[in-house]
Amino acid sequence: MNTDPRIELGALNRAAAAEFSAQLAGIYEHSPWIAERTAAARPFSSRLELLAAMQAVVLAATTDEQLALVRAHPELAGKAAVRGELTAESTREQAGAGLSECSAEEFARLQTLNSDYNTRFGFPFVLAVKGHDRASVLRAFEQRLRNEPADELATALAQIERIAEFRLAERVREPMGESILAMADHLRQYSDDADALSCTYLGAAHRATAQRLCDWMRAAGLQAQIDAIGNVVGRWSCGRPNAKTLLMGSHYDTVVNGGAYDGRLGILLPIAVVEHLRHSGVRLDYDLEIIGFGDEEGVRFGSTYLGSRAITGQFDSGLLDRQDADGISLRAALLGAGLDPQAIPALARDPESLLGYLEVHIEQGPQLLDEDLPLGVVTAINGSQRFLIQIEGTAGHAGTVPMHLRHDAAAAAAEILLHTEKRCAGVAGLVGTVGRLQVPGGAVNVIPGRCELSLDVRAPEDATRDAAVADLLAEIERIGARRGVRIELEEVLKGAATPCAPMIRQALADSIRRVTGRDAVRQLASGAGHDAVPIAALTQAGMLFVRCGNGGISHHPDETLSVLDADVAALVVADFLVRLEAP
Amino acid sequence: MNTDPRIELGALNRAAAAEFSAQLAGIYEHSPWIAERTAAARPFSSRLELLAAMQAVVLAATTDEQLALVRAHPELAGKAAVRGELTAESTREQAGAGLSECSAEEFARLQTLNSDYNTRFGFPFVLAVKGHDRASVLRAFEQRLRNEPADELATALAQIERIAEFRLAERVREPMGESILAMADHLRQYSDDADALSCTYLGAAHRATAQRLCDWMRAAGLQAQIDAIGNVVGRWSCGRPNAKTLLMGSHYDTVVNGGAYDGRLGILLPIAVVEHLRHSGVRLDYDLEIIGFGDEEGVRFGSTYLGSRAITGQFDSGLLDRQDADGISLRAALLGAGLDPQAIPALARDPESLLGYLEVHIEQGPQLLDEDLPLGVVTAINGSQRFLIQIEGTAGHAGTVPMHLRHDAAAAAAEILLHTEKRCAGVAGLVGTVGRLQVPGGAVNVIPGRCELSLDVRAPEDATRDAAVADLLAEIERIGARRGVRIELEEVLKGAATPCAPMIRQALADSIRRVTGRDAVRQLASGAGHDAVPIAALTQAGMLFVRCGNGGISHHPDETLSVLDADVAALVVADFLVRLEAP
Repeated sequence: MNTDPRIELGALNRAAAAEFSAQLAGIYEHSPWIAERTAAARPFSSRLELLAAMQAVVLAATTDEQLALVRAHPELAGKAAVRGELTAESTREQAGAGLSECSAEEFARLQTLNSDYNTRFGFPFVLAVKGHDRASVLRAFEQRLRNEPADELATALAQIERIAEFRLAERVREPMGESILAMADHLRQYSDDADALSCTYLGAAHRATAQRLCDWMRAAGLQAQIDAIGNVVGRWSCGRPNAKTLLMGSHYDTVVNGGAYDGRLGILLPIAVVEHLRHSGVRLDYDLEIIGFGDEEGVRFGSTYLGSRAITGQFDSGLLDRQDADGISLRAALLGAGLDPQAIPALARDPESLLGYLEVHIEQGPQLLDEDLPLGVVTAINGSQRFLIQIEGTAGHAGTVPMHLRHDAAAAAAEILLHTEKRCAGVAGLVGTVGRLQVPGGAVNVIPGRCELSLDVRAPEDATRDAAVADLLAEIERIGARRGVRIELEEVLKGAATPCAPMIRQALADSIRRVTGRDAVRQLASGAGHDAVPIAALTQAGMLFVRCGNGGISHHPDETLSVLDADVAALVVADFLVRLEAP
Repeated sequence: MNTDPRIELGALNRAAAAEFSAQLAGIYEHSPWIAERTAAARPFSSRLELLAAMQAVVLAATTDEQLALVRAHPELAGKAAVRGELTAESTREQAGAGLSECSAEEFARLQTLNSDYNTRFGFPFVLAVKGHDRASVLRAFEQRLRNEPADELATALAQIERIAEFRLAERVREPMGESILAMADHLRQYSDDADALSCTYLGAAHRATAQRLCDWMRAAGLQAQIDAIGNVVGRWSCGRPNAKTLLMGSHYDTVVNGGAYDGRLGILLPIAVVEHLRHSGVRLDYDLEIIGFGDEEGVRFGSTYLGSRAITGQFDSGLLDRQDADGISLRAALLGAGLDPQAIPALARDPESLLGYLEVHIEQGPQLLDEDLPLGVVTAINGSQRFLIQIEGTAGHAGTVPMHLRHDAAAAAAEILLHTEKRCAGVAGLVGTVGRLQVPGGAVNVIPGRCELSLDVRAPEDATRDAAVADLLAEIERIGARRGVRIELEEVLKGAATPCAPMIRQALADSIRRVTGRDAVRQLASGAGHDAVPIAALTQAGMLFVRCGNGGISHHPDETLSVLDADVAALVVADFLVRLEAP
């Protein structure tokens, strides 16, 4: 699939300075000096780094040079456009926003605005029009006219950077893995906390992240927008009427102090794949929709899967009144972000229109790492059953009560823990955890009269889990009877397992075999929940797990993902997409 | 040993009212009406209850009757005494305080005081002179003369109650078990807390308890006083010059919210035994000293065994500067209680003067209860070794990390706990306890990355404990290595075991056989520390354990002791004392 005609970033890094400058001369409109001054800063590890270096040159230039750069841009639907004197890039861009199809009134209005703007600021109105239509261009124009002259140059330069990013995407390719990691790392800067990545639903960092995702989708060639629940939805249409849609995606919100790849990989990877396929001349015979779900972690409103549930039509409108820790309701938060709560029900997809759902996600565990494998096909998303357990034994003097006369609550808890460990070991996908364990008010010289613990059991199949739980409950009863302690269990959660769709599992496995050349494909269950859980109620859903570095740690700043793993995952997804047949 | 000539309390309960009144007519001086009015309140379960009923009659009487009661008492060393007109009781009592041996000046001073007192209050000065000497009588006299007339009648009536108690002890006998339990229950009223028994060293409750113990020792026939560290010391002298001394005793302080028998049994039981032996005409050929140790629990100053360490000469005078939670130093507390810190070193006993030490104590555990035995001979007081243990494993997602890749800190702790239980089971006297156990900040869905626990190991022989600890430490190391978790141990305590003296163990066992008629005598180790531990450094020490009811619970309001068990223990101690041969 090396049919992508764009120049490779590595080739730019290795090229002579003149060649580098020539290749990138058009990234900034009529301003080849920017590429020339950037050449010395090579090499660049990613296109985002290249962009940052070019924009740094812009910001380091004199004000006269900056003004010259802005003034090198044509007016929107201006005289140059009418006379056909635009650069090829500007022509495509203005046409993309429908500016070549203005009505006479719109055209007249734009001329007036162009003139007013130039009079007020001394340079033409520059806007990265990708993703805009004529109406939104007019709105932006009117808004910018109200800006302070002192601030407007910076605004224009920021728009020019966006234009440069779009143009770079059309001109320069990089390995998909590099692209994915560079985007994920770039998003770290949008955070509720200065020292950590915390991207909470509908907060300022969350909204900035959504805007960036939108831009990147557009740069990749998708029609992108933010929907009424805050999902970022990008569509790569195949152009066939009534074509079915394959959904891909994951979430872009994070836990507090989370990792950069959890969720986001599942959005950024298909973006990179679409860009790659499009430039390689591939056209799918179905529509592809990439959704960055706005809320999966449920940090702010305590309700997980808000984004994907809106897509499945399972959104509970009663949640609109739920308040966050600051007393702000979900409704108010949506309105504050410029979203329309009343439009949420219309987000529900028609199952008939869908081909399925594929979610790429880091494993959030150490299994692939441990087995030295980059990828695994998810068999099912485990259902989990949770209990809180209280044990009441008999407190006593640690020195005076002989071992055989004790009713030690902590010893009973220890037995439950070790029995859980033993029962779950060796059964594929079955896990059991005692995460909470405490002797309340314990003292060194007192035999524990009470002990509190939690029990969490998960398995890819409900039958496996149910059998394990039944065995554990029976053993807990035996432990209580044998030790003469009272054990009370409270079931606090029971969720069914979600099997992944056989078609998607099979197709993913085939793609992995083709891309990696290895016959054996690792199949594994997901211990954590994902957006695929609610979506599975809508359409056939499957997941691809990518190896998590650093011991498999996730939901933590130490979460890592390697470039090579991201790249091979992207190649597998590209293969999957190309070979998927629409009925 | 039914040679005690006193009338039995049960016989008084069963007697005709006239007989009851006749037997107790002299308990209150020249006031037979009190016994007469008390008869209807029978039966009484103890002498203390009988006394309370008689005093209730006094307090329910008219003021004229109360005044008549006070006026029925002779002046101290007054004209009646000089003329030989006192009742037999008063004659003995006044002689006991040395008032029959006054110097001419003292006699003159007493006459003046008698006259002044009668003038000020309208009734003679009444004082329970037992335990007094002439000097302290004069001090009390001068102090009472300064009282308000409105309060002095109540003071006189309280002194009359004390006189009645002493007289009742000479007139009425009760089973030793009843006496011991009645005294222990009576002491519950002296507490730092309204709803619980908390008797903290040198507090008001503690001092009231000491006074009461002093009175009971005196009533039993001992010479009693409170020493410079707050021990209540009662001596039953055999009268032989250079006779050796057998020490008996235990402590009268309690833990916060403690039990009524822990410690106190070991003071009250020998008091009851001495009273019984004396009235049975027994005379020992050695001196017997009963010591109620003021501080064993160490609640107030955090230093255990203050009382017994003063007796052994091990008192650390540096402790005088140690402060309690309110910032009061031990020195200030002693001075505030009227005690002389400088006199503490002189409390040290000469080991050459001692025969040994016998401590009677409730078991504070369930072994005797479990085996249906009232008594056991203590073989040794266990040494204890304590560790605080920190385990560091790897936290992880409870759903995503498979069992074989976990490094679960809590599972390692559970293994340590169960291995401790297994290693200690079946080895006589060896006990191991994990009393503290906690996963800090544990969550249901997180594999524990940390766990904290304590380990306490005790055995009657140091070799047994050392072997167990060595095995446990080796196993803990294996557990850490196998599970890939880091385990840090900190030894926080190591105390050697105190073996009980063979002579005392043998003699106690012989006495138990004789009293109970059973050949098998239970020998058991003490898991808790006792005053016998420091005393064992001074003289040969032994302990008798008495069955603890209620599952063996101690240091708790639910601590119980049965009358019958206290009685058989007292009979065994009486036999032990009678048969003990002084060299």
